[in-house]
Amino acid sequence: MSSDLKQRIIGRVQSDVAAVETALHDNLGAHLPIVSDVAGHILFSGGKRLRPLLMVLSARLCGYAGGREIFFSTVFEYLHTATLLHDDLVDGASLRRGRTAAHTLYGNETAVLVGDFLLARSLTIAAETGMTDVIKVIAGITENMSQGEIHQLTQKKNLELSEAEYLEIIRRKTAVLMEGACRVGALISRADEARTAALTAYGHHLGLAFQMADDLLDYTADTAALGKSVGADLREGKLTLPVIRALSAAGKEDREQMARIITDDDFSDDDFHALVRLLDANGGIDGTRAAAESHVAAAKNELSVFEASPGRSILEDIADYALTRKH
Amino acid sequence: MSSDLKQRIIGRVQSDVAAVETALHDNLGAHLPIVSDVAGHILFSGGKRLRPLLMVLSARLCGYAGGREIFFSTVFEYLHTATLLHDDLVDGASLRRGRTAAHTLYGNETAVLVGDFLLARSLTIAAETGMTDVIKVIAGITENMSQGEIHQLTQKKNLELSEAEYLEIIRRKTAVLMEGACRVGALISRADEARTAALTAYGHHLGLAFQMADDLLDYTADTAALGKSVGADLREGKLTLPVIRALSAAGKEDREQMARIITDDDFSDDDFHALVRLLDANGGIDGTRAAAESHVAAAKNELSVFEASPGRSILEDIADYALTRKH
Repeated sequence: MSSDLKQRIIGRVQSDVAAVETALHDNLGAHLPIVSDVAGHILFSGGKRLRPLLMVLSARLCGYAGGREIFFSTVFEYLHTATLLHDDLVDGASLRRGRTAAHTLYGNETAVLVGDFLLARSLTIAAETGMTDVIKVIAGITENMSQGEIHQLTQKKNLELSEAEYLEIIRRKTAVLMEGACRVGALISRADEARTAALTAYGHHLGLAFQMADDLLDYTADTAALGKSVGADLREGKLTLPVIRALSAAGKEDREQMARIITDDDFSDDDFHALVRLLDANGGIDGTRAAAESHVAAAKNELSVFEASPGRSILEDIADYALTRKH
Repeated sequence: MSSDLKQRIIGRVQSDVAAVETALHDNLGAHLPIVSDVAGHILFSGGKRLRPLLMVLSARLCGYAGGREIFFSTVFEYLHTATLLHDDLVDGASLRRGRTAAHTLYGNETAVLVGDFLLARSLTIAAETGMTDVIKVIAGITENMSQGEIHQLTQKKNLELSEAEYLEIIRRKTAVLMEGACRVGALISRADEARTAALTAYGHHLGLAFQMADDLLDYTADTAALGKSVGADLREGKLTLPVIRALSAAGKEDREQMARIITDDDFSDDDFHALVRLLDANGGIDGTRAAAESHVAAAKNELSVFEASPGRSILEDIADYALTRKH
C-alpha cells in the first residue's frame, strides 16, 4: 500500500519534478563555479522536491494559468537547501541524504556563504512575482525558520521541554515552509480567501505531520534507509515528540533510565536501543504516530473546500505519504 | 581638518542617527530573547549607521516626502549586521568594534542563525516598501555579498591575485551595499533616471573608497583605534590593494621577502612591521591611498547632477570622510 501510494504520486508528478529540476539548474544564477558546485552538491543529491511541488500543485488546484509556476516554485527548494546547509553546520551533522555534508566537504565558511547566496537567490526570484504579499510570505518563512532552529538550540537536553513548545519549534522550523509553499500557490493564482486559507492550513498540518514522522524515523529507521545517522537527534540533544510523550507517561524508574541515556553525551548503541524500547513501552512511538496521523487527517480535511478532482487527490496522497515514507 | 569634518558630519546627521537607533530597536521583531541579545550585541556596539544614513540622505536629496525613510533605512543596517555576523565567523575573527565577536561569545550555530534572521528581517522590511524594484536591489545585494566573500575565500594567499579581481571582490562584498542604499533612496523617491544613476554611482565609488581605506588601515592603524586586530587581513590570507600594488612594483628581492612573510602561517610582529615597510617602500601604501582618493573624487563628481545644497554637501563630506577616518 505504501509502495502503491508512492508509485501513484510519482506517476502524477514526475513531469513537474523534471521541470523543477531543469529550472533549479537554470535559475541558480551563480557567478562563481564554487558556488554552483557547493549548491549543486546538496541541491542535486536526490531531494524529493516536495516543497516546489506543493506550490505548483496548489497553484494548479486554484486554476493558475500564468505559466510561471515552475520558475516561482524554485524559491522553495532554494530556501530549503539554504537551511539544510546552515542546519547541518549548526547540528554538526556529517551525513545528508547518504552523502558527506557540504560543510564537511567544503568547510564551514563556504557552507555559510553558499547558504546566504541561496537565501538571497530565493528572494530575488520571489521579487520576480511582483507581488509583495508573496515576498512577505517568503521573507517571513526565513525569519521563522531561523528562530525555530535557535529555539531548538536553546532547548537542547531540556528534559522539561513541553509538547506545546515542541510544536512551536517544529511549526517554525518545518511547517512554515510547507505552509508558505501552499499559500504562495494560492496567492499567485489570486485564489479567494477561503481557498487561500485552506491551502495554508493544509500546508501547516502537512508540515507538522512530516516533522513528527521525521522525528519518529530517527528512532525507528535504519541508517542506510534514512541516508543520515539514526539517533542523530538524541546525539544532538534534540528532544522530540517520541521522547516528550514517553517521558510524560513514564513512571519514576523508566523516566530516570531515559533521563540517564538522554543526558549522557556518549551513550552506547545498547543505550540507544534500550531507550527506543522505553519510548515504545511508554507510548512515545505510538503516541507520536497518532499525533502525526491526526495532522494528516486535518490536512486532508482542509481540502474539502475544493471539489473532488485529480488535483485535490494528489495533495491528499501527499499527506498520506508523510506517514508511510521510510526516509 | 579631519576632526572638523567629522564634527560637521555628526552635527548634520545626529538626529537622523538617533532616529535610526530607535527604529533598529523597534523593528527587530525577534520572538526570542536570545535573538534580540545576539543581534543587539553587534547591532548596538557603536556602529556608525553609515548605510542607513546613505539611504536617508539620498532620499532627502531626491525630495522624498513619504515619511518612511527611517523605517526603510533599517534594512541596510540589518543586512550589514547579518553579513558581519557571518563574515566574522568565516574569518575566525575574535574582535569586532573592540568587543568579543558574537560567534565566540554565543557559538557559531547561533551566529549563523541570527545572521539568517537579520537577512530575513531586512527583506521583510524591504517588502513593506511595496516596490519590487527596491526588493530586487536588496535581494541582489545579498547575492553579491555572499559571492564576493566566497570569491575572496578562494583567493586566499594567491600571490597572483590581480588588481582587477581584487576590485571585483570588493565591489561585491562592500560597494554593492552602499550603492544599493543610495539607489533605494532614489527609488523610493521616484527620482528620475539621471539622479538614480548618479546616486547609484556615488554609492559604488564610495564603497570602493571605504574598502580601500579599510584595507589600508589594516596595515597602518593600531589595534586600539581600529577596534579589531591590526594585520588581520594578512593573518586570514587576504591579499588587499596595498599588497597587490607593492608586489607588482617590487624588484625580485623585495618581492621574495614579501612573499615569504605573506605565505608564512605564523609570521611574527617583526615580520609584520618588515612587511609594512616593504609595502611602503614599494608604493603599496601611497598607491592605495591614491586609488581611494580617485574613487572619492569620482563619487563627489557624480553628485554634480544635483544643484549645490546642504543635502548634496553632506554626501560630499561623507565621501571625504572615507579617507580621513581612523577606524
